[in-house]
Amino acid sequence: MHKIPIGVLGASGYAGRELCALIRGHPGLDLAFATANAQSGTTVELPYGGNVTFVATEQAPLSAAALVFSALPHGTSSEWVSRATESGARVVDLSNDLRIGNGPAAHGVPYGLTEVRREQIRGAAVVANPGCYATAILLGLFPLLKGGLVAAGSTISIAAASGVTGAGLTPRLDLLFGEVTENFRAYGAGNTHRHLNEIRALCAETGADVDVLFTPHLLPTARGILATMTVPLTAPLADVMQPWRQQYADEPFIELSDVLPELRHVVRRNAVRIFAMPVAHIRTPTLIVFAALDNLVKGAAGQALQNANLMLGLDETAGLPA
Amino acid sequence: MHKIPIGVLGASGYAGRELCALIRGHPGLDLAFATANAQSGTTVELPYGGNVTFVATEQAPLSAAALVFSALPHGTSSEWVSRATESGARVVDLSNDLRIGNGPAAHGVPYGLTEVRREQIRGAAVVANPGCYATAILLGLFPLLKGGLVAAGSTISIAAASGVTGAGLTPRLDLLFGEVTENFRAYGAGNTHRHLNEIRALCAETGADVDVLFTPHLLPTARGILATMTVPLTAPLADVMQPWRQQYADEPFIELSDVLPELRHVVRRNAVRIFAMPVAHIRTPTLIVFAALDNLVKGAAGQALQNANLMLGLDETAGLPA
Amino acid sequence: MHKIPIGVLGASGYAGRELCALIRGHPGLDLAFATANAQSGTTVELPYGGNVTFVATEQAPLSAAALVFSALPHGTSSEWVSRATESGARVVDLSNDLRIGNGPAAHGVPYGLTEVRREQIRGAAVVANPGCYATAILLGLFPLLKGGLVAAGSTISIAAASGVTGAGLTPRLDLLFGEVTENFRAYGAGNTHRHLNEIRALCAETGADVDVLFTPHLLPTARGILATMTVPLTAPLADVMQPWRQQYADEPFIELSDVLPELRHVVRRNAVRIFAMPVAHIRTPTLIVFAALDNLVKGAAGQALQNANLMLGLDETAGLPA
Amino acid sequence: MHKIPIGVLGASGYAGRELCALIRGHPGLDLAFATANAQSGTTVELPYGGNVTFVATEQAPLSAAALVFSALPHGTSSEWVSRATESGARVVDLSNDLRIGNGPAAHGVPYGLTEVRREQIRGAAVVANPGCYATAILLGLFPLLKGGLVAAGSTISIAAASGVTGAGLTPRLDLLFGEVTENFRAYGAGNTHRHLNEIRALCAETGADVDVLFTPHLLPTARGILATMTVPLTAPLADVMQPWRQQYADEPFIELSDVLPELRHVVRRNAVRIFAMPVAHIRTPTLIVFAALDNLVKGAAGQALQNANLMLGLDETAGLPA
Repeated sequence: MHKIPIGVLGASGYAGRELCALIRGHPGLDLAFATANAQSGTTVELPYGGNVTFVATEQAPLSAAALVFSALPHGTSSEWVSRATESGARVVDLSNDLRIGNGPAAHGVPYGLTEVRREQIRGAAVVANPGCYATAILLGLFPLLKGGLVAAGSTISIAAASGVTGAGLTPRLDLLFGEVTENFRAYGAGNTHRHLNEIRALCAETGADVDVLFTPHLLPTARGILATMTVPLTAPLADVMQPWRQQYADEPFIELSDVLPELRHVVRRNAVRIFAMPVAHIRTPTLIVFAALDNLVKGAAGQALQNANLMLGLDETAGLPA
Repeated sequence: MHKIPIGVLGASGYAGRELCALIRGHPGLDLAFATANAQSGTTVELPYGGNVTFVATEQAPLSAAALVFSALPHGTSSEWVSRATESGARVVDLSNDLRIGNGPAAHGVPYGLTEVRREQIRGAAVVANPGCYATAILLGLFPLLKGGLVAAGSTISIAAASGVTGAGLTPRLDLLFGEVTENFRAYGAGNTHRHLNEIRALCAETGADVDVLFTPHLLPTARGILATMTVPLTAPLADVMQPWRQQYADEPFIELSDVLPELRHVVRRNAVRIFAMPVAHIRTPTLIVFAALDNLVKGAAGQALQNANLMLGLDETAGLPA
Repeated sequence: MHKIPIGVLGASGYAGRELCALIRGHPGLDLAFATANAQSGTTVELPYGGNVTFVATEQAPLSAAALVFSALPHGTSSEWVSRATESGARVVDLSNDLRIGNGPAAHGVPYGLTEVRREQIRGAAVVANPGCYATAILLGLFPLLKGGLVAAGSTISIAAASGVTGAGLTPRLDLLFGEVTENFRAYGAGNTHRHLNEIRALCAETGADVDVLFTPHLLPTARGILATMTVPLTAPLADVMQPWRQQYADEPFIELSDVLPELRHVVRRNAVRIFAMPVAHIRTPTLIVFAALDNLVKGAAGQALQNANLMLGLDETAGLPA
Repeated sequence: MHKIPIGVLGASGYAGRELCALIRGHPGLDLAFATANAQSGTTVELPYGGNVTFVATEQAPLSAAALVFSALPHGTSSEWVSRATESGARVVDLSNDLRIGNGPAAHGVPYGLTEVRREQIRGAAVVANPGCYATAILLGLFPLLKGGLVAAGSTISIAAASGVTGAGLTPRLDLLFGEVTENFRAYGAGNTHRHLNEIRALCAETGADVDVLFTPHLLPTARGILATMTVPLTAPLADVMQPWRQQYADEPFIELSDVLPELRHVVRRNAVRIFAMPVAHIRTPTLIVFAALDNLVKGAAGQALQNANLMLGLDETAGLPA
């Protein structure tokens, strides 16, 4: 069977390596090249086995790829998205550059939250893959926002925690094992995290009149995100999980849970697990909503591949660890 | 120098062992006995070195102790508090039984949140030591509550995370290393955690008209609690940390931080570290407040010893790791 | 396509769950039943997604399975091996009961170290699956032993370390997260570990005149075994890796490394990675040999499935994560 | 009480910070300065509370200190040892530069293995503090070596494992949390680790005719070293622990164990814990010896302070966490 050639720009980080590994395991795709400037010429092992040798990004044979994933740094990526499209490739951009809420460059670029934007993604030339936190938060909140169930003028308070691979594979003193083990801390507090823009933008597109307060935390784990979200409602819900069941019927990668989601339920899988429950001893009708995913799979490389499958006319689930 | 004899009931758990270790290191106290029914007769190593041999609780020579700590299970502890007081000992009860908000037995028993109830604790016969989460949350919120700064009718949303020693030293399948490592999950969600009662009761005593939504999480760490709290305000604060500076001036164990608190700042220390900051991109004036402590020290054995020092007329800081 | 029905006895432990998960993902097998006495009737999540509901072992429809895996406890398993064979099923026994070196019951039962006993395993009615440590150690040493390269009368000193899933899913105080994190210790020292028998027996079968000193350690990880082995040689080797290259040419699951093996190279894979190097500053010609594998995959469920594939006439690699 | 002024050169690493923390807690010492070139001018938190502000090493007021600890990098340190001694300070050098077995510069400099070289250290102007692995290994082996109990011409095989703080506080990709968690690997294998020289040199000084094979491993822990040592004996020992009891009678920091030592027994303490046991199923009389310590305390800063106490005529145990 002929396989479709795929390129990965910026493949040396955690998300890039995960992409290479997923492409290697995909029945219909072939990894044409993987680039990394600092590690150009070096061969690294991939998660789940196998390895890849990087070429310099400037040497990437863009025209040899039918689709290119860009896992280049924020700010650098958008230029390479242009180069790749000019070479005739479709592009899934994993950076922040072209995501909704991040300025004029994002206009007309479908936001790759697959379950919410599937029809725009199918056949698109360029897709902006969502941030890892944004994916968990927005898939968790979307049925309430779209259904008009969130109290007008209220604040959704979100405490989310991520494993350290979310911070990338760059040597940083505060990410050393000795500094992270047995530790836990917030960062990007006070609504200063990069993903806030896309979260606010998609909330606004649903017409919900709501503010978001998002506080990320760094977990002593390699992978996984859990978002714990307090949502003031217009009125109590008789059937708490009904909005999610209705919105996500037949979705292959969304798991509605009947217990509290845990990271171990979702790591190494292209799944998001969602659970909501009412709150006792409180006057305001309020739901607490949990969403868990693997930041490198459904929060990055897996969702990117899910989008690529749609863009290329393949089975949306092909090559994805369910 | 004459040392005051101290007993520990229920000493085989994490909090009980920490108490034994702190008593051993205290310049003015002597460990007269430590009880543990299932491990009666066995000798275990203490944190920070040394060891202790347990006697059965029924064999505890209560009258030999000037003060007894009870780290017995909830429900069992209050009976032993009575026995110990009848034997003439003062008692610090680490269980839930006598804490405010937990029924009529708690009437007249000072709530041992030292920095808030110091004068009632000094010289008391019995003190109910607060829960670990409650200590972090209430020390973090108290200056705002007491100052009338929290918006009336609002909900304070609290996501807190604790290391596994908070769940005790009982073999449980879900606390095995293989189930906790690389994992993260909420528990006691929907305002069902045992500490909610004391949190709500102390909030009410301040006169604040506020609801609390408390969601605890289990961290893959041994020790430490971080509480992340969203607090709607009556009005923005010009000097954000001023309420804490005013309330906690000269407190030896409260550290007002100028950076986001981390567990590693407080583990193995009788300290709570507090930091508050305003939130951008939100219409409601809101603070995000962080409080971090070691669940076994300031959240349990350390605060218990701090209270015992007051009850016995000793230097409040004696024997406590600052 | 018709799938072959498979049963798993004692499926509630780590190895049993891993077996269920691998069978679920196998293109030619179907999980007919999975038993667990204490958890009979309960449904649990499997690694890599999906779930399974256990029946009581006594209720297992043995005759419905073409092949049964027994992950029952040592001592209990052999009886069920007999029952299953009487029902007409082939059996892979993961317990210690029928392994070489463990008494007369093991006579005539092929030892399921696949790469060493492949021809005996192919078509066998019962196979005794090796212990996890034994698999790493024996695959690492076999080319030296068989080649007569180990100094006669010498001692091979082996320090090996395993993640905690090797100790099973039974609640034990010393396996709680709080006791294992940031800890490391030996156990079963002084040549008292259960796997020593099979290690010594296979060494003896090669004709090597050698003693083994095996010291296992408990790692603060969930999975993985690394064995570090000091081997006195008859003479220095000009081409150190030659014995392994020769012995294991074309083996699909043996990876000869050119760097020091790490657990992360092999976890969740049915692979063993082997590396050997000479030692400086020492008079006796000596090799240091490293072997790494996942204790639940190549060290248990994966190798068991590899053997089952051979017994059933399937592709040896089917359903195995390479 | 007058306190003795102490300087720390190269204080920004793990050992340097631990030194600063220990000096701060010492009843008779005062931290006069702490240097760090890259972090000059910055203030960092110390373990166990408190903080320190670094000055540039070139700006260190060497003459203001009665004793200087150098935790500068290997190769750089010896020059600063000279400068400090010229300024009139005594020096404890934590680098490799002046340790026995590392060339002519080490001649006449006492090797600071306190329990073995106490009389040379007392009153010395310069002491070379041993490496962390070397401390565990040599304190574990010394009674056997000195007693002539090790078989002539034999090899002592040592597998040791250390937490990551042993690799220092320099950002390195392979020390990131995401690369170390759930991982385990050897490094410096084949007798290439820097500490081998001092281990071999001290062994030789005892007159023992023995080779050493030392294989270090990297543990997913912050702290702690466990050395597992296979020692061929001249003859079996009737009373296995007798050599250690005799050699280390009344030693305040050596703990002879009757169970297998664990890292949690020794972390954050200036202790080494030693246990030895015979080995079954082996023809050569062999002991397996275990030694555990905290690499930053007894393996670095704690032993350095123990030596400094001796050099300054103070109580050897002052300021040391027993």
